[in-house]
Amino acid sequence: MYKEINIGLIGLGVIGGQVAKVLQEKAGDLSLQAGTPIKLRKIKVLPSDLEKPLVRQFPEELFTTNDDDFFNDNSIKIIIELIGGERPAYDYITRALQGGKHVVTANKEVIAKHGLKLRALAHEHGASLYYEASVGGGIPLIAPLETDLRANYIKSIYAIINGTTNYILTRMSKDGIEFERALADAQKLGYAEANPKNDIEGIDAAYKIAIMATLAFQSEVRPEEVYNKGISKLDSRDFRYAGELGYEIKLLAIAKQYDNAIEARVHPAFIHKDSVLAGVNGVFNAVSIEGDLVGQVVFTGQGAGPLATSSAVISDVLRAAGNYTLGTSTSAIKINAAKVVQPIANIITRYYLRLSILDSTGVLASIARVLGAHKISIASVIQKETDTLSQTAEIVIMTHPAAGRAVDAAISELSMLQVVKEINNVIRVEEQ
Amino acid sequence: MYKEINIGLIGLGVIGGQVAKVLQEKAGDLSLQAGTPIKLRKIKVLPSDLEKPLVRQFPEELFTTNDDDFFNDNSIKIIIELIGGERPAYDYITRALQGGKHVVTANKEVIAKHGLKLRALAHEHGASLYYEASVGGGIPLIAPLETDLRANYIKSIYAIINGTTNYILTRMSKDGIEFERALADAQKLGYAEANPKNDIEGIDAAYKIAIMATLAFQSEVRPEEVYNKGISKLDSRDFRYAGELGYEIKLLAIAKQYDNAIEARVHPAFIHKDSVLAGVNGVFNAVSIEGDLVGQVVFTGQGAGPLATSSAVISDVLRAAGNYTLGTSTSAIKINAAKVVQPIANIITRYYLRLSILDSTGVLASIARVLGAHKISIASVIQKETDTLSQTAEIVIMTHPAAGRAVDAAISELSMLQVVKEINNVIRVEEQ
Repeated sequence: MYKEINIGLIGLGVIGGQVAKVLQEKAGDLSLQAGTPIKLRKIKVLPSDLEKPLVRQFPEELFTTNDDDFFNDNSIKIIIELIGGERPAYDYITRALQGGKHVVTANKEVIAKHGLKLRALAHEHGASLYYEASVGGGIPLIAPLETDLRANYIKSIYAIINGTTNYILTRMSKDGIEFERALADAQKLGYAEANPKNDIEGIDAAYKIAIMATLAFQSEVRPEEVYNKGISKLDSRDFRYAGELGYEIKLLAIAKQYDNAIEARVHPAFIHKDSVLAGVNGVFNAVSIEGDLVGQVVFTGQGAGPLATSSAVISDVLRAAGNYTLGTSTSAIKINAAKVVQPIANIITRYYLRLSILDSTGVLASIARVLGAHKISIASVIQKETDTLSQTAEIVIMTHPAAGRAVDAAISELSMLQVVKEINNVIRVEEQ
Repeated sequence: MYKEINIGLIGLGVIGGQVAKVLQEKAGDLSLQAGTPIKLRKIKVLPSDLEKPLVRQFPEELFTTNDDDFFNDNSIKIIIELIGGERPAYDYITRALQGGKHVVTANKEVIAKHGLKLRALAHEHGASLYYEASVGGGIPLIAPLETDLRANYIKSIYAIINGTTNYILTRMSKDGIEFERALADAQKLGYAEANPKNDIEGIDAAYKIAIMATLAFQSEVRPEEVYNKGISKLDSRDFRYAGELGYEIKLLAIAKQYDNAIEARVHPAFIHKDSVLAGVNGVFNAVSIEGDLVGQVVFTGQGAGPLATSSAVISDVLRAAGNYTLGTSTSAIKINAAKVVQPIANIITRYYLRLSILDSTGVLASIARVLGAHKISIASVIQKETDTLSQTAEIVIMTHPAAGRAVDAAISELSMLQVVKEINNVIRVEEQ
């Protein structure tokens, strides 16, 4: 019962540093929870990390920069990987699992790209691989999808799963500011990185929805199959129209299954202002899961940040400790279905279109003709704010449901009309 | 690997019937999930149940009315108890666990009253006891408290955890109707029982918060220690004032811990209309959990109904099947702390007071004097709607934080003032 469980930690960045601190500060309580002493034994860092002031908060003998020294320490039973990025994290996780060590990670990129393989590897070596922290920070999502909702056929997941972009969109919606300023504010507050591409372009959210969809649908959804479109093209005018029409604009990560098909996509979307997700603001995350039995359940919380993420990491450490004590391991991911991820061109939704047009008679008729030729029917139109000097007006069209393919074709035709000066934006409307 | 796992079901009421149906209809899929055939083998019912039309949907040989026939069937490995109420459910669960069978139940009364003992009994016999369905229908709550959020020191739980009362309060708030009519509508729609006492008086919610608090605080919270006050005294006027003041009225189940004390209580409360729980309407449930690491996480969904409840029951069956296959069991509940549940008189909150008074000069001064004598300070006052004939006015006072003891004493003194015609309502205000 009272064999000590030693932990090895890889990485001493923002998350790694926090996890190391919690492991030290809560050592007594965590050992009580696990029924056996839990001890941070080694931290593997880069030589440059040793310059960080944070290092001085821990006993010097905890640190190593040597891979062999770390991975060959047989007293270490659980390894926490918190360096992020695909390499060398993937190699480290592989090496740890091959050594029969239980692994806990927050690495969405590695899990999205290699999760199936790594779970199988863990199972083969009697080890565990836990990654609750890879999606939604401390919000329980992986465990509910794998266990608590397991009796369900999961129909859909609608998620606000990137706090950086949700902060930016909230500011644009509430304060009427433009994207660039909202991004700059997010960077100032530490909500966005200096290079914000992964967040802004929806790449981060695509990793996360791929991880959830694979578990929910028990069918492999690879991140490169997830369509992603970012938020940098959104304009304060889009938010103003959204408000007038009763909508909010959110970066949604969506996964659905029906028959033999799967949808998996990340893009800005109009959602009705009364929907649950429309009310999720700032850096908060929310994931709405619909199952055939449970109906809709929604999980909300802080989706990032070192403290919230450490909640998931350390709860996973306790799970792994339980496995170590019992001699059990995690199972491989069950893949029951081989469903095809639909190309975005096949996906049917309503659309919001915003165009700058010449303010002359017959323009709306020409536009309607093009849309009609592609079987896109118009639900409502707003025409506004004629600039008398340039004779330009702006027109906003809400369509009835149409496939991406039809809309793309119509848009490319519209852009060639002389009366259309610019296609300002094309955004899907989701009924969640 | 492919040993069949036989299920025994006790009860064929609304929930039991639904669970039996899902076990039949999803047999193939559930077997795939469990990695071994899952089979509904026996349903224990009362002789009177055999008259139900539902019975004809299942093969006759499934049914038994004989206890020994059911409990002595050694081919049954998992028993699902869905009759509700304390007895004989408690005896059935005890008998099943003593026989080393894994038990799944939705029975909040039995778990709230006997959960610790039964978990210990399960552990002793190498069996499991799962009860995710006992709180919040299909919403994962038990597993998050026990596992996913386990690294946290849980500071508080604020919950809307009874759909019947939330439906009634939503109708009273949105439609301005009185309690009796809202209750009648709830009964017509099947949201409230013919005898609604357990829901209306907060007894059901008290069981549920006792179950959650015991897990969250790892300290036994017995249902009789949970203060409960129902919603039948609420008046449409309270909702009108709440609206004016920027609040909603909800039946909250609250549990908190600090130092060596625990709060556990169920009562109607004013909550700010912008708070997460204020937006939870109709039969929906929502549970907001605050941990030291994770911050605030909120779980929302349908908290009742046969289909949603079957999601939790059957996911628990899969959990139990996993234990059976691996030869593992659930642990006993870890009780680390022996914290004292505070009497409601000690609990300090702001208050809403509504009084009918004589409309004469100096009345407010007299009232303020009484409150002041009990160290209750007034935050705001509304005085309204004088009935000139009877010379009656209504006064609404929002106080600063005060202990229940002080408010009770002040109220009893106020009720003796000649200028106070009636104490209409006294409701706590919660900052969640």
